[in-house]
Formats: sequence, C-alpha cells, structure tokens
Amino acid sequence: MSPEERLARLQQEMTRPPFHHWLAPEAVKAEKDRIEIRLPAARPEFCHSLEPALIHGGVIAALIDIAGYAVVAVEQESPAPTISMTIEFLRPAPATELTALAILRRLGRSVAHADIEIRADDKLVALGRGTFAAKGEKYK
Amino acid sequence: MSPEERLARLQQEMTRPPFHHWLAPEAVKAEKDRIEIRLPAARPEFCHSLEPALIHGGVIAALIDIAGYAVVAVEQESPAPTISMTIEFLRPAPATELTALAILRRLGRSVAHADIEIRADDKLVALGRGTFAAKGEKYK
Amino acid sequence: MSPEERLARLQQEMTRPPFHHWLAPEAVKAEKDRIEIRLPAARPEFCHSLEPALIHGGVIAALIDIAGYAVVAVEQESPAPTISMTIEFLRPAPATELTALAILRRLGRSVAHADIEIRADDKLVALGRGTFAAKGEKYK
Amino acid sequence: MSPEERLARLQQEMTRPPFHHWLAPEAVKAEKDRIEIRLPAARPEFCHSLEPALIHGGVIAALIDIAGYAVVAVEQESPAPTISMTIEFLRPAPATELTALAILRRLGRSVAHADIEIRADDKLVALGRGTFAAKGEKYK
Repeated sequence: MSPEERLARLQQEMTRPPFHHWLAPEAVKAEKDRIEIRLPAARPEFCHSLEPALIHGGVIAALIDIAGYAVVAVEQESPAPTISMTIEFLRPAPATELTALAILRRLGRSVAHADIEIRADDKLVALGRGTFAAKGEKYK
Repeated sequence: MSPEERLARLQQEMTRPPFHHWLAPEAVKAEKDRIEIRLPAARPEFCHSLEPALIHGGVIAALIDIAGYAVVAVEQESPAPTISMTIEFLRPAPATELTALAILRRLGRSVAHADIEIRADDKLVALGRGTFAAKGEKYK
Repeated sequence: MSPEERLARLQQEMTRPPFHHWLAPEAVKAEKDRIEIRLPAARPEFCHSLEPALIHGGVIAALIDIAGYAVVAVEQESPAPTISMTIEFLRPAPATELTALAILRRLGRSVAHADIEIRADDKLVALGRGTFAAKGEKYK
Repeated sequence: MSPEERLARLQQEMTRPPFHHWLAPEAVKAEKDRIEIRLPAARPEFCHSLEPALIHGGVIAALIDIAGYAVVAVEQESPAPTISMTIEFLRPAPATELTALAILRRLGRSVAHADIEIRADDKLVALGRGTFAAKGEKYK
C-alpha cells in the first residue's frame, strides 16, 4: 500500500459509520502499523461538565475504540470488529483538541492487538488497549 | 436512602452531563448496589452501520462508563470518576433499545469495582467492568 | 457429555501442565458452562507476605487463567489458549483455601468469553474475565 | 534516590515475598519510572507443556504483576498493591529466559498506572497494564 492509499483508507474509516458523522473524527496520519486521528473541536456535547470544561469518559472510550479498530482495518484492508478493550483514565481531559495515536502491536491469524494513547493539548490523558478480529475471520 | 431518593439521584446522574443531553440515557431502576439505565431509541447516529443496523462500539463503551459510574455515585452519594474500564463485545448489537445493568461488586476506601451488562432486546451483547474513585478521595 | 465425562476432562486439565504439578489446583465441579476448582492448601510459597499471611497476586492471576481456560476447554473439548485477561483485586486474600468459579459467558466461533470469581474462605477476593481461543481455531 | 539505591530497592522487592523465593525473579535495571526484571531459567514447573516447551500463562501473569508493582513501589518508596491488571498474550512463549520491562505511565495521588512488556529471547510475547495503589493510600 502506498502512503496515499493508507491515508485514503483511514479517511474512509473516519467518515463511513453514521456515529462518526456526529463525532467527526479526522484522519491525521497513516503509516505502517501506526495511525493518528483527532477530534479537532471539543464541542459542548462531548463534555462531562462545562465548568470546568472536561471531556466525558464515554467520548474518550469511543475515540479509543475507533482508533484501535482503524489501525487494524487499515493494515489488513478489511473490517476489524473490536473483541475487547481496556481503558485507563490518567487525568481529567480538558475540552480541547483530542488526538488518538494507535499502534498495532501484533497482527495474528485471527486476533490483532493494538495500543492507543489519547492526548489533550499534547498531554497524555488516557491509555487504551484492545483486541480486534483479524482478517479473514468473521469472528463470531 | 429511600428508594425514591436513589432513583432521583440516578435520574440526576443521567441528565446533568452535557454529553448525556445528546446520548439521552434514562434511569430505569435504582436499588442498593444495583442500577439499570437504558437508551430507549437507537438513533441512526448511534450506529456503526445502517444495513444491517448495528450499534457502534463507542456508544456501548460510553453506556458502560455511564452505568458503572452511576452505580458507584448513587451508592456513595458523590462523584465517582472512572479510573479504568474493560469491555468485552460478545456479539453485534442490533439497533434497538439498549439496557445497561450495573452491579457494585465492592466499595472500598479509595476504589470501587462495578460490573456492567449491556443487552439489546434482552440479548446480552457486551460485558463491562470498571474501577471508580471511591468517596472522599479526590483520586488524582 | 455426561457429568462424569465433564469432571474427568476438568481433572485432566488440572493435572497435565507441569506448572499445575507445582500449584496443584483440584477439580471440584464441572457443569455446563460452569466449573469450579480450588487450591486446598495455601502453601507458604503462594504468599506475598507471611505476617500477615496473604496470597500473592501472581498466584491469584494464575488461578484465574487456569479456571477461565478450563471452562472453555471442557465445554469445547479442545485447548483454549488465553488471548487476554483482566483481573480486579477486591481485597487482600488470606492464606487459606482458594476457590475459583469460572462461568462461560459466550462461546463464539473464534473467541470465547469467561468470567472468574476467586474466593478465600468464601469471601470474594478477586474478579477475572478473559477471552480464549475457541474450538477449531489455532488462534495465531 | 541514587541509581544504586533504586537497584537495591528493586532487589529487595524481588527477594522478600515467599512466592518470589519459588519464582526467583532477578533485578536487572532500575531507572526513573522504568525497571527491568527477569526469570533467567525457564524451569519445567513454569511450563504449560514440555513438548513443545512453552511457558504457562499463569507464570507470565505473575511476572507482569511483580514488574508493575515493582516499578511503582521503587518510585514511591512504599508498597503498591495491585488494584487491577490486564494481560494480552501475543504469542506462545518459548521456555527460555523471560524479561519484564515495566514503565510507570502515571503516578497519581491515589492510583498509579504502569505498562509491562514480556519478552522471551527478545521476542515480545505478552503485554500487561495495571493500576496500583499510590503512596500514602492504604487502598481498601
């Protein structure tokens, strides 16, 4: 896959699902085993509270799911349904741009493993890790 | 706390955060160490795909976070920031009413543990488990 | 499978691996989607400390792995390599008999999900949850 | 803390618990927010099977618990009971020297987060992540 094809695939992953129409994650970068996406604007409906303005954990969880799925799906050029996922919330996330970096740790025959880091204004706010269905397996 | 007070607290948890204005989870039941909430309508923007109409994993993850937080917050009558959370997706979730049952497994001095089950049309679609900051501890 | 066959399979799972020769877990019960095993004696080498005598987290983690694997392996009558596993330590575990109850939550085509509860003297001390490779899949 | 003091602390963590007398993990390195330990010899009782000779998942889980606890305990100079832990098994682990690298990702006021990587003969075989009780908090 060329770098352009990778990025095009990532963009497709970001725009296709109806849920993403609402959340509006954007493709930033797509390299081998490594993608980056972002939520450029922290809209009020992403928040747990407004004063102080803090992002809701559910939005962070959703972003982790999307980024992990995407790094596997782009690599294997096919859907990668999430099997399981863990999230650690390191600190409150200010309502600013959020970025998600996803790294493919292992692409096995039927399961893939990915790590995800969420940053708000370049500060690490959450860690994610997930297992995803690998190519050629309709996992259930 | 009387049953009415518990339910009133749960309703408050469901309505206060701006993110919930969008998601619109509803309080169903609040008992000691056990609450139930639901998303009555699977709106298109909750979906990963429309044909077939399947709920996005990010929406399920958010619902797990909300339900786990709520069972702890209602019990201890104070906020219960999520520390960590794990999710297992058991099967695709059809775009129908979703219910989340959260059970408090342990309320410790600084950490609480809760289990969450997500059902779509009474069929179990996902399992959640989380640790939450217990009362009196500003956890970070 | 008859109840006797199930129990015989569970006993086999408990005795075959060399690690189990050291740990010495015992089969207690094997029902459909549900098994129970135990460590009858808390030997000093299972402990994190001796005064007070508390079981080491690593021994509890190992017992969770063994019980989760076993409930899947007995059900599908074939090995069930652990893919991922989460553990919540609810309270210190006194150095007494430990029991592990494992419940199969979902046996899918390529992945199985199981829950595990660890009790010391009938008191819940830890929760486990795992995904395991389902039958017919050599998962990596 | 001087580098020598850190390493001495790590060595102490490796030798004190009775369970470690059996497992025999060794301190390799201790830097700020980063420690390394190893199991130099894969003894038969560490194995799931002998032909092929593969390490049991329970031993890997125990090593993850020990390494995560240690990186927090050395940093905060006090015990760091494990609250929760997740493990991903990436591939079968051959019965050879195992190393565990633990990295402290966040040391909060009441909870610490650490990542752990397990290698067998320099090949990554498992990923761990955990939350641990932070200093000054008796966590339950």
